[in-house]
Amino acid sequence: MIIGAIEAGGTKFVCGIGNEHGEIFEKISIPTRTPKETMKDVFQFFEGKQIERMGVGSFGPIQVSQDQPDYGTILETPKTDWKYFPLLDEIKKNFSDDMLIAVDTDVNAAAFAEMKWGAAKGMNSCVYFTVGTGIGAGAVVRGKLVHGLLHPEAGHMFVKRHPDDDFKGSCPYHGDCLEGLASGTSMRERWGKAGVDIQDKAAWDLEAYYLAQTAINALLTYSPEKIIFGGGVLNHPGLIDKVREQFSKLLNGYIKKDEVIEDVDDYIVLPGLGSEAGLKGSLALVL
Amino acid sequence: MIIGAIEAGGTKFVCGIGNEHGEIFEKISIPTRTPKETMKDVFQFFEGKQIERMGVGSFGPIQVSQDQPDYGTILETPKTDWKYFPLLDEIKKNFSDDMLIAVDTDVNAAAFAEMKWGAAKGMNSCVYFTVGTGIGAGAVVRGKLVHGLLHPEAGHMFVKRHPDDDFKGSCPYHGDCLEGLASGTSMRERWGKAGVDIQDKAAWDLEAYYLAQTAINALLTYSPEKIIFGGGVLNHPGLIDKVREQFSKLLNGYIKKDEVIEDVDDYIVLPGLGSEAGLKGSLALVL
Ligand SMILES: Nc1ncnc2c1ncn2[C@@H]1O[C@H](COP(=O)(O)OP(=O)(O)O)[C@@H](O)[C@H]1O
Ligand SMILES: Nc1ncnc2c1ncn2[C@@H]1O[C@H](COP(=O)(O)OP(=O)(O)O)[C@@H](O)[C@H]1O
Ligand SMILES: [Zn+2]
Ligand SMILES: [Zn+2]
Repeated sequence: MIIGAIEAGGTKFVCGIGNEHGEIFEKISIPTRTPKETMKDVFQFFEGKQIERMGVGSFGPIQVSQDQPDYGTILETPKTDWKYFPLLDEIKKNFSDDMLIAVDTDVNAAAFAEMKWGAAKGMNSCVYFTVGTGIGAGAVVRGKLVHGLLHPEAGHMFVKRHPDDDFKGSCPYHGDCLEGLASGTSMRERWGKAGVDIQDKAAWDLEAYYLAQTAINALLTYSPEKIIFGGGVLNHPGLIDKVREQFSKLLNGYIKKDEVIEDVDDYIVLPGLGSEAGLKGSLALVL
Repeated sequence: MIIGAIEAGGTKFVCGIGNEHGEIFEKISIPTRTPKETMKDVFQFFEGKQIERMGVGSFGPIQVSQDQPDYGTILETPKTDWKYFPLLDEIKKNFSDDMLIAVDTDVNAAAFAEMKWGAAKGMNSCVYFTVGTGIGAGAVVRGKLVHGLLHPEAGHMFVKRHPDDDFKGSCPYHGDCLEGLASGTSMRERWGKAGVDIQDKAAWDLEAYYLAQTAINALLTYSPEKIIFGGGVLNHPGLIDKVREQFSKLLNGYIKKDEVIEDVDDYIVLPGLGSEAGLKGSLALVL
């Protein structure tokens, strides 16, 4: 089967052609401008490609519930050009009426791809956190992506502040929510330089302290079989090990399952899919 | 249809007979002793009652995944008599082989009942927190109870400490997790008297501050259509209003949905089912 995939991001739209095994044959990166300009290039890429289905993983917030009239519409976003843009409907117009098209958030899509082909392969549940400029979260519970009132936004949950930490937090909404305390943006504000340039052990211990709580809160809410941390900040060597260490310390044996006590190295992991996780995730949405 | 229901608690087992509409015709309360003594009385109650199905909502942790060999077995618990007790298997032995029996946690069951007949009726998702001696949580996502590695244990998630609060927390595992900061037990430790005897406004403002974060973290992870707070502590007059107030303040407009901005009184609510919510929940598990 020939499947189209779109990873719709705030800075670029990555479009690709792949198949039901998650293989990507061809792709292109299109800079995000106005919807009109951007979508023109997107459709041009897919022209004549004979795609049979199309999956779209988009920046949020976006309506992900199929039974809602605004399914696939981007909601209130600071990207004003895109506010209330009916992404799914615009794509539908360009293809035959009966083509299967599905839309979800980029992070939900990535979580789904990790469950199909990556770090959580063979499982029924997982949570995917991407720690970059911001913190995004996707989750699968009992085989289905988490939808409800909206979709997961767990990057903004509240966690406990480290007793020695007096940084006010960088989130414009909440100050010291998780994103405000542990995103790339917060690292830059707190330490005066980008994550990639920070070597100070104390900085990474603190980062791990917050990401460990992220993993604990994910475990205690979703009860996933796997917790995956991706995004630029996780490129820091050894960070994932520190997260595991603090996770064990803070959880303190509360959940008595071997998976989180003995085998934490196999429970909190980096993504199993490479740089194409986003595209593969979009593709996975129509399988 | 005649349905049996068991609400298996640490101090009592409530057994009942009801039907598929959630009506309970008859019930009995049995003090919890050893499994052998307790179950003997339980089975005696059901004898000759012609029940066609049986739902069991139990204290946890308990294996809730039907595809696991130890489905329905109580796991590591401080109630040593009950540790590893195969609750489902023992019940099965007492009834005909082909009778449908389902087991879940008491709080998951209550969440399910609230979705079927209570505060979240007609919806596909909800979260139920019970704030009593401890804090328990149940959740429904896309129509199904949350299972995975285990079941929700969100009562122990981490939240941010109030800047003026220096209580160390009462949780034996985590100190200042949610349960350690906001359960009935923590109120008693913090203020030196039981919740029911506390009138100090500051105490209830602080309680609301933590429960509001509970609601926010639930919203940002599960994205439920309804958040329900039950349990003894919620008997305090006006507490639910304070929780809503702080929820709006702390969320600060981040999720731009009318449900959580305009209609928060209808989003964060008390249970819709009366004192029989637990039993009705057990019953709902086999519908
Ligand atoms: N090797 C690294 N070590 C630590 N932080 C890094 C590293 N590489 C990138 N980052 C940080 O990751 C963030 C960018 O994350 P990324 O996921 O690539 O982007 P975005 O979230 O914008 O899509 C920046 O804050 C950057 O400083
Ligand atoms: N009216 C009330 N106001 C405040 N707290 C109350 C009230 N009634 C009961 N509580 C508190 O609720 C807790 C018991 O909760 P409950 O749900 O009844 O029991 P359990 O969790 O043991 O099943 C106690 O800490 C008690 O002080
Ligand atoms: Zn925030
Ligand atoms: Zn705890």
